[in-house]
Amino acid sequence: MRILVINPVTTREWLEKDQEYLRGIADYGTSVDVVRIERGPKSIETFYDATYAGPEILRLVRQEGEEADAIVINCFADPAVDAAREVVEKVVVGPAETSMSVALHLGSKFSVISTFANSAPWVRLQVAKFGVESRLASAIGVDIPVLELEKDSTKAVDEIVRAAQEAIDRDGAEVIVLGCTGMACLAQKIRQRLTVPVIEPAATALKMAELLVKLGLCHTRGRSYLVPSFDKIEGYR
Amino acid sequence: MRILVINPVTTREWLEKDQEYLRGIADYGTSVDVVRIERGPKSIETFYDATYAGPEILRLVRQEGEEADAIVINCFADPAVDAAREVVEKVVVGPAETSMSVALHLGSKFSVISTFANSAPWVRLQVAKFGVESRLASAIGVDIPVLELEKDSTKAVDEIVRAAQEAIDRDGAEVIVLGCTGMACLAQKIRQRLTVPVIEPAATALKMAELLVKLGLCHTRGRSYLVPSFDKIEGYR
Amino acid sequence: MRILVINPVTTREWLEKDQEYLRGIADYGTSVDVVRIERGPKSIETFYDATYAGPEILRLVRQEGEEADAIVINCFADPAVDAAREVVEKVVVGPAETSMSVALHLGSKFSVISTFANSAPWVRLQVAKFGVESRLASAIGVDIPVLELEKDSTKAVDEIVRAAQEAIDRDGAEVIVLGCTGMACLAQKIRQRLTVPVIEPAATALKMAELLVKLGLCHTRGRSYLVPSFDKIEGYR
Amino acid sequence: MRILVINPVTTREWLEKDQEYLRGIADYGTSVDVVRIERGPKSIETFYDATYAGPEILRLVRQEGEEADAIVINCFADPAVDAAREVVEKVVVGPAETSMSVALHLGSKFSVISTFANSAPWVRLQVAKFGVESRLASAIGVDIPVLELEKDSTKAVDEIVRAAQEAIDRDGAEVIVLGCTGMACLAQKIRQRLTVPVIEPAATALKMAELLVKLGLCHTRGRSYLVPSFDKIEGYR
Amino acid sequence: MRILVINPVTTREWLEKDQEYLRGIADYGTSVDVVRIERGPKSIETFYDATYAGPEILRLVRQEGEEADAIVINCFADPAVDAAREVVEKVVVGPAETSMSVALHLGSKFSVISTFANSAPWVRLQVAKFGVESRLASAIGVDIPVLELEKDSTKAVDEIVRAAQEAIDRDGAEVIVLGCTGMACLAQKIRQRLTVPVIEPAATALKMAELLVKLGLCHTRGRSYLVPSFDKIEGYR
Amino acid sequence: MRILVINPVTTREWLEKDQEYLRGIADYGTSVDVVRIERGPKSIETFYDATYAGPEILRLVRQEGEEADAIVINCFADPAVDAAREVVEKVVVGPAETSMSVALHLGSKFSVISTFANSAPWVRLQVAKFGVESRLASAIGVDIPVLELEKDSTKAVDEIVRAAQEAIDRDGAEVIVLGCTGMACLAQKIRQRLTVPVIEPAATALKMAELLVKLGLCHTRGRSYLVPSFDKIEGYR
Repeated sequence: MRILVINPVTTREWLEKDQEYLRGIADYGTSVDVVRIERGPKSIETFYDATYAGPEILRLVRQEGEEADAIVINCFADPAVDAAREVVEKVVVGPAETSMSVALHLGSKFSVISTFANSAPWVRLQVAKFGVESRLASAIGVDIPVLELEKDSTKAVDEIVRAAQEAIDRDGAEVIVLGCTGMACLAQKIRQRLTVPVIEPAATALKMAELLVKLGLCHTRGRSYLVPSFDKIEGYR
Repeated sequence: MRILVINPVTTREWLEKDQEYLRGIADYGTSVDVVRIERGPKSIETFYDATYAGPEILRLVRQEGEEADAIVINCFADPAVDAAREVVEKVVVGPAETSMSVALHLGSKFSVISTFANSAPWVRLQVAKFGVESRLASAIGVDIPVLELEKDSTKAVDEIVRAAQEAIDRDGAEVIVLGCTGMACLAQKIRQRLTVPVIEPAATALKMAELLVKLGLCHTRGRSYLVPSFDKIEGYR
Repeated sequence: MRILVINPVTTREWLEKDQEYLRGIADYGTSVDVVRIERGPKSIETFYDATYAGPEILRLVRQEGEEADAIVINCFADPAVDAAREVVEKVVVGPAETSMSVALHLGSKFSVISTFANSAPWVRLQVAKFGVESRLASAIGVDIPVLELEKDSTKAVDEIVRAAQEAIDRDGAEVIVLGCTGMACLAQKIRQRLTVPVIEPAATALKMAELLVKLGLCHTRGRSYLVPSFDKIEGYR
Repeated sequence: MRILVINPVTTREWLEKDQEYLRGIADYGTSVDVVRIERGPKSIETFYDATYAGPEILRLVRQEGEEADAIVINCFADPAVDAAREVVEKVVVGPAETSMSVALHLGSKFSVISTFANSAPWVRLQVAKFGVESRLASAIGVDIPVLELEKDSTKAVDEIVRAAQEAIDRDGAEVIVLGCTGMACLAQKIRQRLTVPVIEPAATALKMAELLVKLGLCHTRGRSYLVPSFDKIEGYR
Repeated sequence: MRILVINPVTTREWLEKDQEYLRGIADYGTSVDVVRIERGPKSIETFYDATYAGPEILRLVRQEGEEADAIVINCFADPAVDAAREVVEKVVVGPAETSMSVALHLGSKFSVISTFANSAPWVRLQVAKFGVESRLASAIGVDIPVLELEKDSTKAVDEIVRAAQEAIDRDGAEVIVLGCTGMACLAQKIRQRLTVPVIEPAATALKMAELLVKLGLCHTRGRSYLVPSFDKIEGYR
Repeated sequence: MRILVINPVTTREWLEKDQEYLRGIADYGTSVDVVRIERGPKSIETFYDATYAGPEILRLVRQEGEEADAIVINCFADPAVDAAREVVEKVVVGPAETSMSVALHLGSKFSVISTFANSAPWVRLQVAKFGVESRLASAIGVDIPVLELEKDSTKAVDEIVRAAQEAIDRDGAEVIVLGCTGMACLAQKIRQRLTVPVIEPAATALKMAELLVKLGLCHTRGRSYLVPSFDKIEGYR
């Protein structure tokens, strides 16, 4: 099985790290290739960023998707996931939707701990779209930019754990979802300090992609996903 | 008051027609400028199309938005509306969300009549995001591409009226929302053949933009909408 | 365009003030006539009050509605709005429903700040009826009777701002709806002290009435709204 | 125990019939007094009718409510139920809300069979207000005025049974709620022709009133229900 | 009328007490027989306990149910209520579902005060199943085992009242539901210290069973409830 | 990894077949042991059947669960899944909940095709409990007992395909979930005749169990799931 992981950001330094991390998580026999977009945002923290990531994600899906068995769009904003499903009849998943579906099996309500103040309204859109509003306990932003999560990882872990504990104690969360794939490197330390399951979304998306491929399941085109008229797009190569 | 209408498609021939139509609908004293994107889709019928429209919409918002009082993204997919609200602290609205909010005042349930088979699942996402699921009667696609609506307008009107009547009789719709701004030219004929209110979304978005400006209301930044770091985007001018 | 504004209270002193305020808000070319009921409550703060306002509202609608293009029932309880739509095939709107629909465009969640302890349960009914439950952050009563809002306006503004800030900080509101049309005179001062959009419901209802008329939209009779048998009512003139 | 049943219609001929019917259903030891309003609608079929019934209902509640243990507002529109709970701290129930709560125990989904085309939207409001949307299968109007249900009872039964069977077969209803207290006289015949439980709302309201009194339960005032300022009402005796 | 009350626990000491209590609550003419299961849990506090209570409940229903007019499964977990309705075409109710339906008549939102930390997630399942999610204010566990509620009843009352007051003040509850039938003996004292209605679930289930029988209502078999093939069960007598 | 699959039925003939099927689906390195209960129903088609399966499921979980990494309760009723999670701190999943979460990734709405007339109400309970009501298109029973699915597999496939096609055409389903683990042997033939993804629930549960174990995720005890007092159960070994 071959899984194409698209980092919808131009940042290069995550490529190798992500590839190593996700290969360690993939099943024996699954090859994982992490690619990045060449034009677009360095990180995705706003709707603006996500919008600029879109065309390049689709270019990569169109160019490299046919040779993969599944595609992971590696950002918790799940950018262009629906559009990518129109481009190829391959499994396409995002970290947010797969983290939410996995969370449903682990406890009554989950909370999402993310990077910024827009976390709560953004996650509201995600659970509404995904149809699991009644299972969300809360979404909390810790106010640390994605690109700084690793710089002071001790502080980042502290802040995330503090917010998660608030979600557990005040909002009744039984599951914590890390709301940013950039938190993957912190997940282990966060887990050690919490007593509830902690979902790391990048790994979760990868495993769900494998699961769908192994079960022979794939979205089909015809209703939600129509085959686009590729030549209707002007000005993009 | 100045309203900037962004046609998120590269098609030129609608520019003048839309400008004339919307100027006729605007209040005395409101100037309306319709612009189009230069790169992107000729029409928006899929998530793929919508994704390719995004960056150019935001470029136009950033470039011309500060001089407008309000911005209308003139497509029922409401592409990049959330992102545009991050770019400028001006009123930004889309035809789908404004048509839905207006429909709430006119009857118990509304149906959306749109162009394609993806109408029902796409509108499900829109009502879920907007939070008005319980007010949707149904969404029906008539299977006529946007670019052909005008070519055989008699057939298009017939098909739309037939679908609308089905929504009224079978699904209990009391309000019909035309699910494509390209149907503006057909709205009058459709209205003549139906006994329920018919919402034309382009006009509705324009009037709602005026309303919000006149009431001095505007989304603010800080939670849903953060100010983007514009220099984080690479490879786009 | 002629808009009939019905104050569903017997209090006279608001007539002139409201007329001046709403005429200032109306478009050039819109005439606004504010009338009051002659029998019924001095102010509406309970379901009891609202019930006693009903027959007179409908008498006024029946008597004067045909000559108006639209009717605003000027109280946040939206009393008799549904019934009024049965009486005339004219646009009829209320401040609560129009404030809620406008709020949907401005941020993820809105809170209503109203006068009494019954605010939260009453607003729950309103959002349930309107179908926008998932967009309500909270409803808070400040415990100041309608008739005293103006007497000590400094205190009233202070209390409303305090409650609104609690809604913003604790409940995640991005939009504040003033839950009483009697707060119109305080709106400007409240706005100056908050960083989120503040919706004043009387003005909002008026502008939405104008919008609907300009778009040629009106509820129709036949399903939600049937034509009443006027002579079935006994004992009322 | 004394139960006051308020027929919110001026029609006299139902008084005796209802009194006999409801006394037959009341427990041994429960006295039932059916009274009618003196001013208002002959029957309630529209929001207009319901509005005109309001003040008289409240006058009766205020005048006679203190001596009752519970009050039933005997019309499926549940007119002025909330307001009546503000007037007296006695049990006040309506046929719609009690029929819905009883239906919840009898099967997965219920349908309401009512008199007119406004049945579906009106019942949507009722289930939304009561919070049981997910349990409603459908609401169907049979297009027979209340005042004619008894005139041609064979036809009325036929029509109601036909609609109920449609609700069962097409919409999956497991419980039928008769959506009009005027159908009480037909209930027995309807039951004989259907295989699912049929809820007659007048009897249900009476028994639920008894149940609440026997359990010592009553809504309290202070949040949903505030004590009204009776002298704030002008022009009504 | 004969009502069979099944205590789904093996504990003997509650039998007499419950019989006395419920006979005091039953109508004149209703006979109440309280029986207990012979195999299963001493008390029900977990899903595990509830699972072990199931087969014996159904054995009792099958053995003794035909001679009853209605059956109450006397535990707030409502164990095996759906299954029991398959066994006999008699009224079968549980304390949780009947308490919730009664609470709907008494105020805007209810809170459940129960014994353990699993209260909130368990009640979430119950309101979701019953379809009344929007009416729940909160569910709070007081961390006192069922079997100790009576041992230190002063402490139990204190804790329950404290939790109820929190539900009222913080969560907006207007009705308190005691979330354990073992709290029946404390209900009177709790009521004296709260200003909102307090629902005791065992009594409520009994009265609702009577109500349904008196109204001639019963679930029918054919959709939700099919007649089981009793001989398909092996290894149980 | 070792996965314990509990067939919650006494039927022996499925043991070997299921073991072979599921081992073929398990990852290299995963051992799968299928066991059956010794007392209980031959098949699960009613709530009655499910209730009798409970205690034995828990006995097996307690006895053999500690040595497994994950446990699958192999029946679409997901019997005793919550209780099993209290017994061991191991991954426990059921076919219904895992099929529903997987379906969320494949299209807008899913339909469940099951064996009996109770399919629609039972699935309503399942989606309500799981919190995904808005994603269900419909649930249809084909009226073939579980034990006869294999006897006339041609007829069974025909009926299931016919129902699925109805769900697709009439109800808008984009994903079909087979609502019975006994349909596993028919899945391949059903897939060949439908154009949308078909989820076979037994395989799905197994793969999701593997996924959760590989991600190191497990429900924890303390809120939804408390550690039961095993010695509180009397009369069961």
